[in-house]
Amino acid sequence: MKNGKVTLLSAGPGALDLLTLRAARVLGEADVLLVDDLANPEIATLAPQARVIAVGKRGGCRSTPQAFIERMMCRFAKRGAHVVRVKGGDALMFGRAGEEMTALRRAGVPVEIVNGISSAFAAAAGLGMSLTHRDHCAGVTFVTAHRQDGSAPNWAALAATGTTLAIYMGLHRVEALSATLLAHLDADTPAGAVQWAGTPQERRMVTTLGRLAADVRAQGFASPAILLVGGAVGEASVAMGGMGVIAEEVVARAA
Amino acid sequence: MKNGKVTLLSAGPGALDLLTLRAARVLGEADVLLVDDLANPEIATLAPQARVIAVGKRGGCRSTPQAFIERMMCRFAKRGAHVVRVKGGDALMFGRAGEEMTALRRAGVPVEIVNGISSAFAAAAGLGMSLTHRDHCAGVTFVTAHRQDGSAPNWAALAATGTTLAIYMGLHRVEALSATLLAHLDADTPAGAVQWAGTPQERRMVTTLGRLAADVRAQGFASPAILLVGGAVGEASVAMGGMGVIAEEVVARAA
Repeated sequence: MKNGKVTLLSAGPGALDLLTLRAARVLGEADVLLVDDLANPEIATLAPQARVIAVGKRGGCRSTPQAFIERMMCRFAKRGAHVVRVKGGDALMFGRAGEEMTALRRAGVPVEIVNGISSAFAAAAGLGMSLTHRDHCAGVTFVTAHRQDGSAPNWAALAATGTTLAIYMGLHRVEALSATLLAHLDADTPAGAVQWAGTPQERRMVTTLGRLAADVRAQGFASPAILLVGGAVGEASVAMGGMGVIAEEVVARAA
Repeated sequence: MKNGKVTLLSAGPGALDLLTLRAARVLGEADVLLVDDLANPEIATLAPQARVIAVGKRGGCRSTPQAFIERMMCRFAKRGAHVVRVKGGDALMFGRAGEEMTALRRAGVPVEIVNGISSAFAAAAGLGMSLTHRDHCAGVTFVTAHRQDGSAPNWAALAATGTTLAIYMGLHRVEALSATLLAHLDADTPAGAVQWAGTPQERRMVTTLGRLAADVRAQGFASPAILLVGGAVGEASVAMGGMGVIAEEVVARAA
């Protein structure tokens, strides 16, 4: 019997052609596919031999418990299967890969990682902006507004870094979040929102931090969405408008 | 004559199979390829029809001026060519894509972006760690230690965010950089270095912030390298050792 293993595989932001060549090859070799509900379910078409198991973990909803997912991965791998755990975006960002690697190592199961594209990169591509335009900043911070223990990130420090802020899982609390940031950043700081970044349903908006909450609500933006805040967002190819602008096709995409 | 355009294409960290499927397709359609010297030159094998032009911009060395690259892209595109500008990592991070998009838009040349994997993701994969382990942080900051105007990032604020710090272009000034961070973070804060992340030559080390500078020098680490600092680095599957540990194969890679 062959040796089992687990690959934590990054599905990227959605479009199947944003998978890496390595990811496509590994999917073709998978015996068991565990698919996160933020990943495109069509990914299963690239794993024709695999038994496909959906393991959604959407915040607030009834979902597969983390410990159960970890036990399932170990069990299949110990029986000799190549288990591929598919995660939306990059597996190493906001995906509990840390806990899963720890559990697998403890169980003596080999783990491989295949990187992918995190949604904020697709969001920036959609807006036609660099995340780190050197006229505006020295870098970019990827931060989640939704922490397990209910605590908030240190928004004062985040604002003080001067980096572009790419905020994941922030749309449902955009009012509180932008009010907090407004204590530290000017109201006219450029801000944007991209819903379903990197998918055919992508929607984009550029506005200001002062108007962000009102504009995303007025335009009916919903999760999953990336919020972007900082001077670099002002370079987006979407014109900034008083009412928030939704560009249907801002930058021609290579889609 | 067909319409010309420019694609800013992300080559990822080095290994050709870390390109996306979309990048591979677009390379196959390229008429002219402008290749950055941080990108793997073998990428040209995926663009068999293209005229290949090397446009290195290595810091400190004699290199192709940015304005010349921009003029060249516009000229070829206006003659109807599909110009593919290849950038290491993700085009939208630390690659002057912002300036290039502005120049191309001003010249009326359509621009497309194809995302890719930035080296810090490959570095984290090499170390077997999540960039955002929720037991340690609310996110990750990608920051360059090398700013055009010579100014330093706000290290005090960056340290205060509590995010994992992924520092690009920092190795040549690791002594000054770690001394500055030690004013704000404990000496036993986990820290790591990955040279040539995501390539067959990859080397990795995990140590502490207090020992980082001495350990990378003792082990002969050189640029290009990613430095990682923060609690999440302590979850790397490399054992932390007093002398800095280089693991030959930390996590089995799907390479």
